[in-house]
Amino acid sequence: MRTVAEHLNLCLEQVAPLAPLDVLLPDTVGCVLAEDVVAPFDRPVVDQATCDGYAVRSHDIVGARPTEAATLEVLGELRAGDTSPASLIPGAAMRIASGAPIPAGADTVVALETTDQDMRRVSIHGEVPVGSNILRRGQDVSQGTEILTSGMRIDARQVALLAGVGRLRVRVHPKPRVVVVSIGDELVEPGQAGGIGTVFDANGHALACAVADAGAQTFRVAAVPDEHDTLRRVLHDQLVRADVLVTTGGLSYGAGDTVKEVLSPLGTVRFDNVAMTPGKQFGIGTVEGVPIFCLPGDPVAAQIGYEIFVRPALRKMAGWTDYYRPAIMAKVDRGWESPAGRREFVRVRVTGTPDAGYDAVLTGDHDRLLLSALARANALAVVPEDVTHVNAGDEFYCMVLD
Amino acid sequence: MRTVAEHLNLCLEQVAPLAPLDVLLPDTVGCVLAEDVVAPFDRPVVDQATCDGYAVRSHDIVGARPTEAATLEVLGELRAGDTSPASLIPGAAMRIASGAPIPAGADTVVALETTDQDMRRVSIHGEVPVGSNILRRGQDVSQGTEILTSGMRIDARQVALLAGVGRLRVRVHPKPRVVVVSIGDELVEPGQAGGIGTVFDANGHALACAVADAGAQTFRVAAVPDEHDTLRRVLHDQLVRADVLVTTGGLSYGAGDTVKEVLSPLGTVRFDNVAMTPGKQFGIGTVEGVPIFCLPGDPVAAQIGYEIFVRPALRKMAGWTDYYRPAIMAKVDRGWESPAGRREFVRVRVTGTPDAGYDAVLTGDHDRLLLSALARANALAVVPEDVTHVNAGDEFYCMVLD
Repeated sequence: MRTVAEHLNLCLEQVAPLAPLDVLLPDTVGCVLAEDVVAPFDRPVVDQATCDGYAVRSHDIVGARPTEAATLEVLGELRAGDTSPASLIPGAAMRIASGAPIPAGADTVVALETTDQDMRRVSIHGEVPVGSNILRRGQDVSQGTEILTSGMRIDARQVALLAGVGRLRVRVHPKPRVVVVSIGDELVEPGQAGGIGTVFDANGHALACAVADAGAQTFRVAAVPDEHDTLRRVLHDQLVRADVLVTTGGLSYGAGDTVKEVLSPLGTVRFDNVAMTPGKQFGIGTVEGVPIFCLPGDPVAAQIGYEIFVRPALRKMAGWTDYYRPAIMAKVDRGWESPAGRREFVRVRVTGTPDAGYDAVLTGDHDRLLLSALARANALAVVPEDVTHVNAGDEFYCMVLD
Repeated sequence: MRTVAEHLNLCLEQVAPLAPLDVLLPDTVGCVLAEDVVAPFDRPVVDQATCDGYAVRSHDIVGARPTEAATLEVLGELRAGDTSPASLIPGAAMRIASGAPIPAGADTVVALETTDQDMRRVSIHGEVPVGSNILRRGQDVSQGTEILTSGMRIDARQVALLAGVGRLRVRVHPKPRVVVVSIGDELVEPGQAGGIGTVFDANGHALACAVADAGAQTFRVAAVPDEHDTLRRVLHDQLVRADVLVTTGGLSYGAGDTVKEVLSPLGTVRFDNVAMTPGKQFGIGTVEGVPIFCLPGDPVAAQIGYEIFVRPALRKMAGWTDYYRPAIMAKVDRGWESPAGRREFVRVRVTGTPDAGYDAVLTGDHDRLLLSALARANALAVVPEDVTHVNAGDEFYCMVLD
């Protein structure tokens, strides 16, 4: 029997960060940068006004005050987007819009509010320090400087900077493409009729969502029956678009289970008991070179197995160096007997604050695999292998799922 | 001049939660539930085994122990998905797979590990309490009970429960469809040539990402020049697919700016100065009944305006009752003069822990609108209107952006 830590290590060893690709800017959001980005252009590309006003020579407004305005002839008007070179003669001003290039000769911009806004001869009612309301060429970003470093996550603010310096393509670790296959004769789609011998396929839908939530691309295959040929064909068809395969079900000792027989000849998959509850057997390996994770059929056990083993591996593939959910210590609200030698993951709802501490209320019996209890939980309390007797008030690390 | 709080209230009053729709399960992820969900079926739909083993009558294994096994004839095998009614006679057992229906007459399941796993006559080496390893019909969810309540966010765990009880469609507030339009003659797409008179369109890309990150659907329009007819046509074309319009640029006093002239006749849009920095003028209202938010053209001011005014409104439309980013108190690393009467939003990088407290390091000058500083920031320090002198070590609320 393998420990949870051993199986997790095997899962992480099975995968590597995906090879970097040049990706169009809008598709990089949520990805991890795989290059140190150097600015290809200055930002701004020319000195520009940061507010609406008048471009002037500061020398010409020395001594201006409310009672004694400096009055300057307005030579013209500059708009954002103007490309014709403009130049300012002494004793004159140019009306200028926010974002417009500063004319040669001007060294400051007087904001509109401190003038009479006249378009022919403007009266300026105060001095303004040299360089006011001007963003100099390259003052935000200078061409050739490193602006973002490999390993950062790209979000809206990084996209703004990349776009702002003219980058259209960026080298990132692409999002892993994950194919989710649930296996079982008993599985029917939600919306169909239920009845004896049927189980609604919760796994396929839930894992597809959990994979997408981890920032990966997800392709869900409708549930596959326990038939060798069908499963072999589905896996073969899906491999072309998969960086990872995730299966659920087909792992028990029952005579009708097929996943081991089908997978074993195709690659390196091993099936082992892992010392945890819920869950028992897990598979890990490759199929035609593609990493595959085999999870139990029970949907609570499958989702917990996904959280413990698959999500960290997907984050590694996406280029993250931090693979894990945050955890906080919380006091459980009741006692129970926890199985010896197994790490137990218990569905809890954690509330509290850093100051007051955290409480973890079990959302169902610790040993019943209830989807209703998982849906109410926001964390998994982790009871170590050597703890067999839990008392109300004991503290455990809780993996925060929200 | 309007305060930040007043303008935020106007923005929130302008929108309402979008009317609920029946949405297919995979498309509900990240949405807010708009119904109290009642289970249409029991889960499980029949009593079922929770592990591989043998279904027995507990009476028949009373007194079994390692040295004195109870031996039972194996009548057959039950797989998950079996629909034929099976029944157990006294003194017999049936091999049963995890998930398979419990045969009539059986009241417990003996796990495979405590037997010799024989398929004809099985020896059982221990007693097992009545009801072991059986999940009773409706024990997870009983038909007709309320399993999820209106207002909850739907994530993988809730999808699992909804799928598990057979729900294919769920009533949710749909994700708002947001059209982002940047306006300005000077704007060029990243990847094109830069130069005098050009500014790379950072706003369109960054706001599209920020909108998607808030859980809304985003449609970005390539930058529109400062021309009345073009802008009018683009807005008209986009209205059909928009629950919200967001524009940037075209708001300054410069003669070339057109957004006010174009929008005012089409709806109720008002433009006002808001007492904040960065940012000055903001527009809010409707165009042909569609709410519109007009942000400044500077990309730092636009993104901050989006965070303060637009994101809360989008969350209200999506059905959330909690509209705001979390905020933490942090000590700033330097002092500066903050403008009187204006709320200042300063780009900072916050680090720390609840126990040790938090520090906020400014990522650039407080009064320079630098994309490079915004990209390094993970929070906005909020300096109230009445604070004009900030000292190093002063504490401010910081809106956490990550």
